[in-house]
Amino acid sequence: MSNYKEIDSYLEKNLDQSLEELSRYVAQPSISAQNLGLRECAELVAKMLEKRGFKAEIMATDGAPVVFAERKGKRDKTLLIYNHYDVQPPEPLELWNTPPFEPSLRDGKLYGRGVSDDKGHLTARLFAIDALLEKEGDLPCNIKFIIEGEEETASAHLHDFVKNHKEILAADACIWEFGGVDHREVPMQFLGLRGICYVELSVESLAIDVHSGLGGGIFPNAAWRLVWALNSLKGPDERIRIPGFYDDVKPPSARDRELIEALPDVEEEYKTRFGVKEFIKGLKGGTDLKMEEVFTPTCTICGLTSGYQGPGPKTVQPAHASAKVDFRLVPDQMPDTVLKQLRAHLDGEGFSDVQIEYLGGEPPARTDPDDPFVKLVVDAAEEIYELRMQIVPTVGGSGPSHPFVHDLGLPVATAGLGYADTKAHAPNENIRVDLYLKHARHMARVIKEFAKEGR
Amino acid sequence: MSNYKEIDSYLEKNLDQSLEELSRYVAQPSISAQNLGLRECAELVAKMLEKRGFKAEIMATDGAPVVFAERKGKRDKTLLIYNHYDVQPPEPLELWNTPPFEPSLRDGKLYGRGVSDDKGHLTARLFAIDALLEKEGDLPCNIKFIIEGEEETASAHLHDFVKNHKEILAADACIWEFGGVDHREVPMQFLGLRGICYVELSVESLAIDVHSGLGGGIFPNAAWRLVWALNSLKGPDERIRIPGFYDDVKPPSARDRELIEALPDVEEEYKTRFGVKEFIKGLKGGTDLKMEEVFTPTCTICGLTSGYQGPGPKTVQPAHASAKVDFRLVPDQMPDTVLKQLRAHLDGEGFSDVQIEYLGGEPPARTDPDDPFVKLVVDAAEEIYELRMQIVPTVGGSGPSHPFVHDLGLPVATAGLGYADTKAHAPNENIRVDLYLKHARHMARVIKEFAKEGR
Repeated sequence: MSNYKEIDSYLEKNLDQSLEELSRYVAQPSISAQNLGLRECAELVAKMLEKRGFKAEIMATDGAPVVFAERKGKRDKTLLIYNHYDVQPPEPLELWNTPPFEPSLRDGKLYGRGVSDDKGHLTARLFAIDALLEKEGDLPCNIKFIIEGEEETASAHLHDFVKNHKEILAADACIWEFGGVDHREVPMQFLGLRGICYVELSVESLAIDVHSGLGGGIFPNAAWRLVWALNSLKGPDERIRIPGFYDDVKPPSARDRELIEALPDVEEEYKTRFGVKEFIKGLKGGTDLKMEEVFTPTCTICGLTSGYQGPGPKTVQPAHASAKVDFRLVPDQMPDTVLKQLRAHLDGEGFSDVQIEYLGGEPPARTDPDDPFVKLVVDAAEEIYELRMQIVPTVGGSGPSHPFVHDLGLPVATAGLGYADTKAHAPNENIRVDLYLKHARHMARVIKEFAKEGR
Repeated sequence: MSNYKEIDSYLEKNLDQSLEELSRYVAQPSISAQNLGLRECAELVAKMLEKRGFKAEIMATDGAPVVFAERKGKRDKTLLIYNHYDVQPPEPLELWNTPPFEPSLRDGKLYGRGVSDDKGHLTARLFAIDALLEKEGDLPCNIKFIIEGEEETASAHLHDFVKNHKEILAADACIWEFGGVDHREVPMQFLGLRGICYVELSVESLAIDVHSGLGGGIFPNAAWRLVWALNSLKGPDERIRIPGFYDDVKPPSARDRELIEALPDVEEEYKTRFGVKEFIKGLKGGTDLKMEEVFTPTCTICGLTSGYQGPGPKTVQPAHASAKVDFRLVPDQMPDTVLKQLRAHLDGEGFSDVQIEYLGGEPPARTDPDDPFVKLVVDAAEEIYELRMQIVPTVGGSGPSHPFVHDLGLPVATAGLGYADTKAHAPNENIRVDLYLKHARHMARVIKEFAKEGR
């Protein structure tokens, strides 16, 4: 690897200035769930990019605008960086020690809503670019940014945006929005996300709720209909009964198992942290538990609601019942296929009265753990973190990486400033300044090494 | 039947005075659900009885006190009258045309909370007693009143009270709290109530809710456990699967079917009023529907609650789930037996993690439609209502009649002033003055004829 002394020294000297820029960025609220400050924040982001000589454009979608920006470099190779400028709502406000949109630096940490997820990642990356421009006069390669404003509300319009703008987004590799170190301070390389298909199932069996002494034995009961429909989806054996559901599931490889095996055990942590007495499916811990956590598609009831839910008895037969259900998907399952299979299954089981509302979905996506770009990002981290990045072949959560992997055909690697106590989505969200600097140093190396590499 | 001219004439002349007494009684709030005004109301009731020469006692229970009162008559035969002095909460207040506790007389109707359920019944009965005392100088037989203060909250302490005071409550027959005419103006004779066993089933699978991307495939899900446990109770065939549940069910008799057959059809009414598209169990209407409505035990989900229930998606695996479930029981099912059978069933099906909280119950009870006391009450109504009372062998709802029928061994008949638009439990509860007078006239006859009859 080249000598990064000058770049590192620039970053150390100008750290405060970069944190000030981050503070100004965080001070601009941009809450997608409340449609608050999105346009203003997109404009601010565009200005931050233009300041670095990027050609930035605020592009309309059917939701919040996407900021797309591009700057050419010395070599005609392109790194695409994905970030988002929207943040989670800050509530409950009373649990914040300092106001969420007035960033506060104390004890080596910067507090504020979005400081970690995901605004700090963007400014640290711009900071790395500043160092490269200052020390080398130009970028070593082309860099493109795609910065959306709906990540916290499931990126409803990002897939179409990527599919419709393949040409301008064309690149050779992609750096994902987040990353960081785990509780052991080991930097993690996350290479996949499960997909998701989120639905609300509902039944309307009567025009109004009825006294249970009257209707109990003669009228259809919405809550019973829902219970039976749900039961038809999955029984206590945990096998999902929807015909065809497992058809597109690719089993994990021996390499996947090897990578999962190397990750820390989770059994004791899960038992302590979540109060799990016994895992399902007879799982006892070890590698099997870790494999099952991320490589199996699931069907989860996230919520149930029907009839009377207050204290004490109320003798009512509910007219309405509904359930929130999420399916986590693994390659090559697709949410629209699952949605069709679900409808066919319910109809086939006699539950045509159960309505399905699609509340959002994302297909799964994974990057090959042995892709050269992954190796580059991992190698570049080593001298900074003084520990080798650990590869996580996929995680259990979901995100909008599918169009990057499958429509743009890119390897997607992670790098970032998160840590165990970063409190993304929670009150007192914060970043550690030392990890902010490390992420900037890492990104400077990633960009420079990527420009060199012969792909 | 005797000549009731003088008694009827007394009742007509003194009607306004009786309605004034009712108004004072209604003006005393006595809301059992809110523990409001119960002691004061019990004292008022005791005074109303003492005014008629009754020996009245306010007797403690573990809940609201019971007013017991007794006055001897010419003949040593005893009629027990059951009423309650508590009322439903008046909310929503904004829907009342006049304040609920300021009784208002207009267009031949008296409005106020409790005027129909059940305060008007008591004062109309005292009014009938006034007429007998005025015209005959004494009661023709012994009369006892048992007036409780917890009927609107499921009479939690009445059963024990009756069982523990069998001697003072000893009687030859019982008049129930309510009664009235139906939408055709036909006076109804209700002779039975189903029992009830009301439970809350709950599951606690984790210490806290967990992200569904993490726990979905490896942690137990409270909502799924609840769905499977409920599904084990009853399937789409509507047959309750709890072993032994149907063992004590007495099938209805040919006489029951004959009486039900004579009642008006309900199919069209139910379809219009409740939006029923199709009845369950393949029921099409006619006598079968009316039989099923009241002679079959049921298992009804009254409410479901778990996890996220707001708008849109939230990817959470719930730690807690619960359901409100009521079982309506028919003779000779008992709620404590059903409770034991339910626990054994859940344990047997692998649902020991499902907790059962008993929220109340009452056993079913019926009076023989051919009992002589029933005939007496029905005969006494005929010249007043100019229509023969129609016998309803049992209704689908529940109430505390079991200890009267089974512990005291009494025939229980109904008589009352209700009508189709009486709005019990609802805003603008009211009674029709003409039916108030009819109920007093009917009760004077019931008491006098009962004293004569040779049982």
